[in-house]
Amino acid sequence: MEIKFRCNCPFTSALDILGDKWMLVIIKQMLIENKETFKDFTESDEGIATNILATKLKQLEEFVLITKSKLPTNKKSVYYHLTEKALELTPLIIELGIWSDKHLREVHPTMGNNESVEFLRNDKAGFGSMLIENYIEKLAKTKN
Amino acid sequence: MEIKFRCNCPFTSALDILGDKWMLVIIKQMLIENKETFKDFTESDEGIATNILATKLKQLEEFVLITKSKLPTNKKSVYYHLTEKALELTPLIIELGIWSDKHLREVHPTMGNNESVEFLRNDKAGFGSMLIENYIEKLAKTKN
Repeated sequence: MEIKFRCNCPFTSALDILGDKWMLVIIKQMLIENKETFKDFTESDEGIATNILATKLKQLEEFVLITKSKLPTNKKSVYYHLTEKALELTPLIIELGIWSDKHLREVHPTMGNNESVEFLRNDKAGFGSMLIENYIEKLAKTKN
Repeated sequence: MEIKFRCNCPFTSALDILGDKWMLVIIKQMLIENKETFKDFTESDEGIATNILATKLKQLEEFVLITKSKLPTNKKSVYYHLTEKALELTPLIIELGIWSDKHLREVHPTMGNNESVEFLRNDKAGFGSMLIENYIEKLAKTKN
């Protein structure tokens, strides 16, 4: 798939792929909220429309950020999983959360403030490692 | 200004503000490329259309990510500067660059590969501190 890059800047080029309302949200839903089927994504708090979701999943697959598979035990459902390239977006996703936690509470008082946020705030590297380890472990189980 | 948040997730909420093609690009242009006037932004490699630029600058100002000012010596030109809230997006911008550098070269061979990228790759915390320090220093000079 041909990606249209605006210029040769590495920062901008990342946003040519990730710079929209949904790409990082879907990756976050997979990484943190264990979403893996089309139905899972439609049931998320973010409430994505099914036509947008279909487009975004296709893009994520074309960019090799997710892969599609079927379980041996259930050949009907399609499962989406993150690739290593997507898992390496974990530090970026974490920085989004840290910035939100610090700067958006004032304008968004109902924003989540649970144990995960506490962990993120106190130990961002640890939080990131935990997410990646849990994800890889889950993936290994799925494939067995 | 009322911001419409999709849900209570901190990660998604950050993207309700920053999740588009331009917001982080404009912040990057100010932080890394010393852009500060409307004309500066229009002359960037990314080639933003003036109507989109005007909208984005307005949004950035409403979200208190930039401030507008005039120089005592030049009352005609408007200068845009990053707020502390925007400077704290530096780690996020850095993660974008690191991810690009590692994963996009394959599909984008002409992507920048200069001394800054080398610095970023070898010492991301140092690169971030350097950017923030340089920016604050520049700002102090501008205001004197």
